[in-house]
Amino acid sequence: MRILAKDVAGAARERAAGGCSAEEVELKGWVHRVRRMGGITFIVLRDRSGLVQLVLDKEPALTLESVISVKGTPALNEKAPGGAEIKAHTLECVSRAAGDLPYQVNGDTGKTGLEAMLDNRGLSLRHPKIRAIFKVQATIIEAFSAYLRSQDFTEIKTSKLVGSSTEGGSELFEVAYFDRKVYLAQSPQFYKETMVASGMERVFEVAPAYRAEKHDTPRHLNEYVSLDVEMGFIDSEKDLIELEKGLLTHIFEETARKNAAELALWNAAVPNADAVFQSPTVSYEEAVKIAGGESAKAGGGRIFDITPEAERFLCSWSLREYGSDLLFVNEFPRRYRPFYTYPLDASRTMSFDALFRGLEITTGGKRQHDYQAFLDVLPKFGLKAEHFTNYLNLLKYGCPPHGGFAIGCERLTARILGIANVKEASLFPRDRKRVEP
Amino acid sequence: MRILAKDVAGAARERAAGGCSAEEVELKGWVHRVRRMGGITFIVLRDRSGLVQLVLDKEPALTLESVISVKGTPALNEKAPGGAEIKAHTLECVSRAAGDLPYQVNGDTGKTGLEAMLDNRGLSLRHPKIRAIFKVQATIIEAFSAYLRSQDFTEIKTSKLVGSSTEGGSELFEVAYFDRKVYLAQSPQFYKETMVASGMERVFEVAPAYRAEKHDTPRHLNEYVSLDVEMGFIDSEKDLIELEKGLLTHIFEETARKNAAELALWNAAVPNADAVFQSPTVSYEEAVKIAGGESAKAGGGRIFDITPEAERFLCSWSLREYGSDLLFVNEFPRRYRPFYTYPLDASRTMSFDALFRGLEITTGGKRQHDYQAFLDVLPKFGLKAEHFTNYLNLLKYGCPPHGGFAIGCERLTARILGIANVKEASLFPRDRKRVEP
Repeated sequence: MRILAKDVAGAARERAAGGCSAEEVELKGWVHRVRRMGGITFIVLRDRSGLVQLVLDKEPALTLESVISVKGTPALNEKAPGGAEIKAHTLECVSRAAGDLPYQVNGDTGKTGLEAMLDNRGLSLRHPKIRAIFKVQATIIEAFSAYLRSQDFTEIKTSKLVGSSTEGGSELFEVAYFDRKVYLAQSPQFYKETMVASGMERVFEVAPAYRAEKHDTPRHLNEYVSLDVEMGFIDSEKDLIELEKGLLTHIFEETARKNAAELALWNAAVPNADAVFQSPTVSYEEAVKIAGGESAKAGGGRIFDITPEAERFLCSWSLREYGSDLLFVNEFPRRYRPFYTYPLDASRTMSFDALFRGLEITTGGKRQHDYQAFLDVLPKFGLKAEHFTNYLNLLKYGCPPHGGFAIGCERLTARILGIANVKEASLFPRDRKRVEP
Repeated sequence: MRILAKDVAGAARERAAGGCSAEEVELKGWVHRVRRMGGITFIVLRDRSGLVQLVLDKEPALTLESVISVKGTPALNEKAPGGAEIKAHTLECVSRAAGDLPYQVNGDTGKTGLEAMLDNRGLSLRHPKIRAIFKVQATIIEAFSAYLRSQDFTEIKTSKLVGSSTEGGSELFEVAYFDRKVYLAQSPQFYKETMVASGMERVFEVAPAYRAEKHDTPRHLNEYVSLDVEMGFIDSEKDLIELEKGLLTHIFEETARKNAAELALWNAAVPNADAVFQSPTVSYEEAVKIAGGESAKAGGGRIFDITPEAERFLCSWSLREYGSDLLFVNEFPRRYRPFYTYPLDASRTMSFDALFRGLEITTGGKRQHDYQAFLDVLPKFGLKAEHFTNYLNLLKYGCPPHGGFAIGCERLTARILGIANVKEASLFPRDRKRVEP
């Protein structure tokens, strides 16, 4: 019977206590490390659950990363990692790895550059510390979905091929679709609004989103996983901020509960619920002033906008003043937000960003749900009503006040673990140069 | 305090019993139907939870599908749908619907053709019976994910932009990606195999997949939601069939538990666990014979392959002989399967399809994990090793025996509810002509 690496210590304890544990168990996995001492060979086997030491009295001809199947007896050993090991009886090589590994799976990830890590993705993902990123990411997606379901949200899956862009932007990837051109969706904005207006009221989606941005920064991906939320019958963006606080609290709690080992590998911790709920909300205008003040104190330059530098200043300010490196900035000026953002007054909007550990992880806001107001605003943004037929139809036949937001999954993953470049938090990242593997 | 339509009967009962229920509650939703009798107006309000009757002694100037907010007292009334209603005190129109509704939301869905339903998607999705499709679909996705997590699978999100096609097919959508061309992924095949080989061993993904097929049939979509599974350390496709039986059982049980109302709207039922586990597995060769026999009995033509017609014959045969309209066909001939499918012998493969209620809902199989065998098979399919560098790298450095399958989410949804055209089970379907809304 196959057991997992993580279960070896338990099986060894049971056997030592005279329990009914099997005398011989089977393990399957990858050769993580090989060490020879005297006549004895120690192999560290890696499977989906972790690492375990095998002890052999013969030296098998094995290469690192080969897949093996081992039969042996679980035994307690204080000196073994985890306090137990397998005294191997038989070892079979299931798949022999070539000897020219281009990436060191059992080494220090810090020694390898980003490009080598991504070029050899099939190998770098074997590294326990790199795998940990995606175990945490899986928890984020699960907890995001579970929390929203608990709040009566329905999961939706909408098309990523759109005939035209709602945002009116030029940052779109063009797809040859039979005899016409369509675009990869920048966000499910229009579709999630349609679902709210269709009466589902509360919807979420986990899906890829695309931005054809040419710049290559540690905070951008051309394809990312967008965690999207949209909710009907809200009063203002403040309802969304409250929702996101509850949502992030659940995500952090689940990450702490399920991924203690992964967080430890990164020497990372998640904020607790108190910190999340103490997170301040400041207006855009205040935020620029705060960031400017922090910059002046640090001997930096003047701040006129919420730049990446300002985001870092704001988070350290929030941590110092409120004990939380999460904060919300609302009331963005109209010129900085899409035309459909609901106005607070002539110059400001009911919109917000969430900043976490120095990085914007969320953009959201209330949307204009009034047909006539939507129609009136279009010319102010240089847009024409005939390009927004679908949107106008959405508002024409009864649409509740609503709004929503999106969390960048890779950004949240990276900020939880303290990863500097968001590309490391994408399994197979796409940037201007990279479409492989 | 806002309550939902589904909670009105409970609030009315509590009030009738002298409980502490509020004298006045608020409801928000859409005007589903208006009826006048004597001096009284009855409005059916629709919210995310369902329908409830409002009683007003004035006749408000309302259009169907307008969004309203109502305050009133919950009261028992045997004659009202659900046994309770709201005696409305005040009614506010939040968003007035235009009077020219191009789709009848409170009518009989059977009276509208597919094109009108899809052209007016924002309205047709308001229809309770059509919304039911996507409530069931949300359950399918949730149950799929939950079951696989319970079996130690990890959720992954992989790129949908690929530099080249693993399948080598011509049915690819081309994307203009900066100064080069890439393609929309037909499946996450290569990526999920990479994740198995990377040591996660068991992975699943819920994501869009793309097929640039020109034909327009009730069973095809150009963009669909693929429920993908891949698993390491399997012996043959039979391990995958067992996994899928457990998975489908959980999906069916959760659908029955959570979506009784939605199933009732469609007069549909899901198979029980016994039926799923009694589902037979027949080889491709047997399956063609069985379908041929059934066709002959029905006075039909000869059957040489598992055509859509043969799929229907096989499912009715399985229902009659095994009490299950689900069955598995395995051992497909090599020529019908991708080159990387693991061979059973010279002519057959360790592959399978699942057929459910007359339609193929799953294709899967064991994959070739041996580097040399993979290399040897390429020329037999007219393929060149230099086009499979990524794949070869995946196998070169230790790859366990593995396999997987994909369930078409829209197909499964449609078959559960008895929907003839799979497009109806896609929120915003894409076909050769349709990219809007």
